[in-house]
This record gives sequence, C-alpha cells and structure tokens, in this order.
Amino acid sequence: MTVATAALEDPLTAFREIDRCLEAAVRFKRPVYLELPRDRVQSRCPYPHQPTKETPKSHKDALKEALAEARDMISRSERPVIIAGVEIHRFGLSEEVTRFAEQTQIGMSTMLLGKSTVSEKHPLFVGIYEGAMGRESVRKFVEDSDCIILLGAFLTDIDLGIYTAQIDPGKCVYATSEELRISHHHFHDVLITDFVKGLLKLDIKPSKRPLPPKPKSTGKFVLEPSAPITTSRLFARINDLLDESMVVVADVGDCLFGAADLTIYRRTEFLSPAYYTSMGFAIPASIGAQVANPALRPIVLVGDGAFQMTCLELSTAVRHGFNPIVVVLNNKGYTTERFIQDGPFNDILNWNYHRLPDLLGAGWGFEVRTERDLDQSLNAALANTDAFSLLNVHLDPLDVSPALKRLGERLSKRI
Amino acid sequence: MTVATAALEDPLTAFREIDRCLEAAVRFKRPVYLELPRDRVQSRCPYPHQPTKETPKSHKDALKEALAEARDMISRSERPVIIAGVEIHRFGLSEEVTRFAEQTQIGMSTMLLGKSTVSEKHPLFVGIYEGAMGRESVRKFVEDSDCIILLGAFLTDIDLGIYTAQIDPGKCVYATSEELRISHHHFHDVLITDFVKGLLKLDIKPSKRPLPPKPKSTGKFVLEPSAPITTSRLFARINDLLDESMVVVADVGDCLFGAADLTIYRRTEFLSPAYYTSMGFAIPASIGAQVANPALRPIVLVGDGAFQMTCLELSTAVRHGFNPIVVVLNNKGYTTERFIQDGPFNDILNWNYHRLPDLLGAGWGFEVRTERDLDQSLNAALANTDAFSLLNVHLDPLDVSPALKRLGERLSKRI
Repeated sequence: MTVATAALEDPLTAFREIDRCLEAAVRFKRPVYLELPRDRVQSRCPYPHQPTKETPKSHKDALKEALAEARDMISRSERPVIIAGVEIHRFGLSEEVTRFAEQTQIGMSTMLLGKSTVSEKHPLFVGIYEGAMGRESVRKFVEDSDCIILLGAFLTDIDLGIYTAQIDPGKCVYATSEELRISHHHFHDVLITDFVKGLLKLDIKPSKRPLPPKPKSTGKFVLEPSAPITTSRLFARINDLLDESMVVVADVGDCLFGAADLTIYRRTEFLSPAYYTSMGFAIPASIGAQVANPALRPIVLVGDGAFQMTCLELSTAVRHGFNPIVVVLNNKGYTTERFIQDGPFNDILNWNYHRLPDLLGAGWGFEVRTERDLDQSLNAALANTDAFSLLNVHLDPLDVSPALKRLGERLSKRI
Repeated sequence: MTVATAALEDPLTAFREIDRCLEAAVRFKRPVYLELPRDRVQSRCPYPHQPTKETPKSHKDALKEALAEARDMISRSERPVIIAGVEIHRFGLSEEVTRFAEQTQIGMSTMLLGKSTVSEKHPLFVGIYEGAMGRESVRKFVEDSDCIILLGAFLTDIDLGIYTAQIDPGKCVYATSEELRISHHHFHDVLITDFVKGLLKLDIKPSKRPLPPKPKSTGKFVLEPSAPITTSRLFARINDLLDESMVVVADVGDCLFGAADLTIYRRTEFLSPAYYTSMGFAIPASIGAQVANPALRPIVLVGDGAFQMTCLELSTAVRHGFNPIVVVLNNKGYTTERFIQDGPFNDILNWNYHRLPDLLGAGWGFEVRTERDLDQSLNAALANTDAFSLLNVHLDPLDVSPALKRLGERLSKRI
C-alpha cells in the first residue's frame, strides 16, 4: 500500500526516518506510513537535525539516450498508441500527455485505475484498455500497435483485464515513477516527469493512424417510467447526469466494471480502488474527495456487499456537512462472485439501505424499483444539497454489466 | 493477541508450523493465528507427516518443591487471600479453586478480566480486586494480606486499576500458564493445572481470617417511573434481572467499569475485553457467546462510541436468529475520555440507535429516557426472543459510575 514506512521508536533515527518517508511520498506520489508510539510523542531530537533537501534528478546522459531511442521508435512506428496511467494524474502531467498526443496525433487510451487521467471527451481519446474486459475495438487498437507508449501505468491484474491483456514488451516504451524500459532494456535514474516533458520537445511525426470508431452515443436517456430498473439502464441514466461539478467514486464489483463505460468529462473525476480492489472503498473515499475539493459532489457507486462494510462512514459525512449521492446497486449479495462460483456464501442480509438516514438522523433515503423511481430520486438527490442522499436500487441478482459478464465467464473457467 | 502465529507459505515447514500453533493453543488456551496464502490452498505435504502428540508435563521435582513451599507459606500466613484470574476459567479449574477455598476457608477475589471465574454468590467470594478502582474493603483485604495466592491472573494495567494496585511480590504465590513464582524466585516447567490440583491435595490450615463485609444489598429494584434514567439506576435495574440464563457482555468504557459491580450468579457468565480494552468488542462477542451456547441470552452493555464501531454485526445476529439484548449507554460521546481530557474530539454524532432495526429489517428498538421507559423496554426485550432488542438509553454525558469517576480523577492527574 505504501511506498515507505517507519516506526519512530528511536529518537536517534526518527528524524532521518521521517525525512526518508516524506521524500518517498513526494518522489513517488504514493502514501507513506509513519507510526508514532504513544510513549514517543514528547521525544525531541537529541542532536541538531537539518532536514535533507536533495531533489532527485535524472541522469543526464541516460535521459538523453532514452529520449533519442523513444523518438526513433515512435517515429518509425506505423500504429502507435499512448496509454496514460494513474501516475500521469499523480505527477500533474495530464496536460503534457494530452499535448504530446495532439502534437503527434497519436490516439490516447487509459487503464481502469487511470480512468479520467485524460479527458474522455478529447477527440484523440479512444477508450479504456482492459484486455478482454474492455471494448473490443480498444483492445485491438492497443494490441495491434507496433509502439505502445505506456506512461505512468502499472500493469496490474485488474488493469490487464485479469491477465487477458496481450501486450508485447518488445513494442513498449514504458515509463513510471519506478522504471523506464524501452523494449527489453532499462534506463536507471530517469524521472518520469523529465521523460514526459522531454517527449514533448522532440520532433516526432509518426504515421497517421485511423482511430477506432467511437462507441455509438446512446443519446439522451429516454425514461420508460414503469420499467423495472436494470444495471445497464442505471448506468445510462447516471451517465446522462454527470457534469463537471461531480466526481464519480466507484467501489469494486460491478460498480467498477460498469463504471468503466461512464463518460468522464474532466480530468481526474473518477476515483476507484482498481489497484487493490479494496471492498468498501467508495464511501470513505467520497469523504476524502470532498475534503480535498468541497466544490465537487461525489456520485458514489457501491454494491450492497461493499456498502455493508463501510456505510457508517456516512456519519462522518453528516458531521462535515458533505453531500455525496450514494447509489447502492442492491443485487442481494456478492454478484461478482456468483459469476465465478455461486453458493449461499454469496448471500447477504437484504437491508433497507434507504433507511440509513433514520438511524443517523440525517440524509435522504430513496427506494428504487422502476425507472420512474430512479428518475425522481436522482432529481431529489440533486436538489437536496444539504446532506447525503442514498438510493437503494433493487437489481436482479444476475443482472450485470457486459464487462462483468465477460470477466465472470473467463474467471469461472479457472475454477 | 495470539500466543503463536504462522504464515503457511512453505509446504515443507507448513505442517510442522500448524502443529506448533495448535499445541500452543491447547497449552496456553489462547488464540493462535494461521495464515494460509490463497495460492497455497491446494498444497500437499511433500513428505509423510506425523502430527506430534507430545503432552507437556510438569517437572516432577520442581512441582513437588513448589507445592511444599506454597503449603508452608500459606500455612504460616495469618491473612491469606485467593485471587482467581481468567486462566482458571480457561483451564477449567474453577471448581478446583472453589474447593481449595472451601477446604482452607480462604476468601476468594477475582480481577476484572476474570470476573465470574468463580461464583459471585459464593459465601467466600469477597469481591473484585482492581486497585483503587474497586471497592475499598476488597482493596484492603487484598493489600493487607500476607499471602496472596494469585492463580491464573495476568497483572495487566486494567486489572491493576491503572497501576493503582499495591501488591508486594514477596507475599505472592503467583501461578499462570506462563510462569510459577513464589516470592522472588521462579519455578520452570510447572503446569498451572498440576499446581492448582496439587494445592487441593495439601493439608493446609491457615489462620481463619474474617471476610470483609458484603456490600449492602440494594434490595429489589423499586421503580421511580418518571425519574430520568441514570447510570447507577440502569445498572441496578440490570443487576435485578440477571439470572442463570444470561451472559453479560460488556464493552470498554463505563459499561465495563460499571459492570464490575453487577452480581454474576454462575461461573463465566461475564465476558469483557478487560485485557486489551478493544473498543467495539461487545456486539461481535455476543455473537460468539451465542454460537458457543445458544441457550444463553447475551445482555450486551455498550457505550455509544463503541456501538458505532461494530453495531452492524447485528446483521450477523439476525442471520443466525440470535437475540442479544443490547443496551446502548448513550452518553453522547467518549465519556471515559472526557474525564481524562475533554474537548470536541470526544463528541460523536448522536444517532437514533433504536432505529437500527429499521435499517436491518429485523430486531426491536426502544428509546429510553425514564425509568418507566427502561422498565417497559426491558420487559418487552425479554419477551421478544425472536430477534435482538436494542435500547437507546439516554444518559447525561457526565453521569458515570463511581468506578469511572475514581479512574478519571486518577488519570487526569497524569496529563
């Protein structure tokens, strides 16, 4: 989880350890963990301590050589593609990557963890790549490429569509905070920021490659008032209401897979635990999002299983006056697991999720069975900005997104 | 928390490690932790494995010498006392300790963690010893003793009344699963079971010592219907309803300190996290208690702070058809902390705790402000055996048990 940890037990080394962890946090833009024993709260440094102020630098010649090679490889390529990963957001390089795409006219993809790292409304955006889980046209566009420029992406199991991705390292320019690899050789001591900014200064004119067709727009959502609500219609309706004032926070399960297809307008408006797939992430994360930017309204997508794990954090939301709109995809159990192996262990108690406001003494609860219910409660939730809203959306236990259906079929073959 | 742990990563050592942990669990009657990595589920032992079947034995001569010395020390003493700790319950020695007390006519005390290890209705039971936190007459009876027979008790911070206990090791016979110490010397390899059973066979006739007076019986609880409910009256009313069909499960905070004065009829009817003072213990523990003995009905005493941490485990109680009576001491925040250092960090959101059944779709909720409310809701809770009952008992934030008042005063001096 963390990029550095220290238990500050010894005053003699504690201050150096704090420096080390803070430097790692700044350098890798990832969490660090400092543990302060309660009998060390009053400790002072036994010697005059000067915080180190070294800024990590790229090795000049290695950077130069890497950029030259990247330029040659991209220029030579006929079917290049850019994949912008989550670190592009963390290192504040979204604009640089977008400009690089515009200069070179190379199509941009993201991965699930990096969804919304670049605007999904950009003409060069081709969609999310996630192996066999994602849209077929995006999969082909990436896997047929002869030059995959992977920037700030971690090649995790989820982002690779549970190992269904077919990416040939021999065709990759792969840069993260941890490593820079071109084909099968590595450059040490090259910072991702220097590399990405360096790419921008190169004169690269690769072959113009036709982009895959955009998915057909579903157009304005047309309500079928008395139709029972389904997963795909739920996502379509939510896609319709998203705007720049919102941040989508998806928990794991079908919320995450289904949410991959939501169109995120601005950069970094999508938060998910696609790295560790930690169930119960979304509600606490929505609090973090609103602490960081109170102007954004979180749209929380969470399954009933994940909701039961951390829903009471809404008590904290109440105390801070936060107003997430929490959509509980209530499919009565661990639906993702049902597609792998089903049994009574996937059943959970069917709570009256919409009654949580009665317990907390705050918030707005709605029970949703039809499209009319959904429409009315979303409109009310958008209007009620004083507290959280909670939609208990009743879904059929086996009604899932196309992505989950594909994933489940693939995973069940392994059991 | 555990007495042994193993991560079963290597099939070559895994089976020996399992044996080691299981032996420790049996020997020390404490939890062990085995971690099975999910890619090791199918592992088989690569060689023929025979589980070890060694039974630990006491060193014969050490046991004999220790018993002889204990006999002399107890026989010589003029003011002996027995303190029965939690291990007496864990090792199934409650009857032996009680018989030893009866043979020798020595008064028995327990500590908080060991509360109910021996029957509190026994004529030789003198009360709970917890340093300055406990009843003064018990403190004097123990600390004035010239021979303290400490059996299966851990000398923890809580059990020693936050270090207010004054026990002179030079006057102790101290036996646990881990060590046997008489005065300042140690005997190795003497099992607590052998030692306690050995004590029973000795011919010991210490001086007869007058027991401290029993606390005045408060008599039958007489309802003052319209009086606002207070902490002491709440405990008095609960004390009145306890019988052999119940197990009291206390969380930390004033539930625990106040519960120390409840009269527990049978052995081991009182469960509490007095060792690690883990907040949020009581509701999950009540589920464990009812799994172990479905015939016992848990009376759960829990503060609002602890309740917010683990209350949703009542969902599990519902699924299993368990019926704890959960009494939420709602004093609007971390009252124990208020007595140490108060501030807004001790405030929590005041939920409608009694509305939890609305969320879960099961259980019975009651709001209690007066003694009449308490009486009616306890009667209803006792009658409703089909599901849990939950009493939201409104208490003044500063209305606490005498034990907590003493503790808070002592702790606040340290800040």
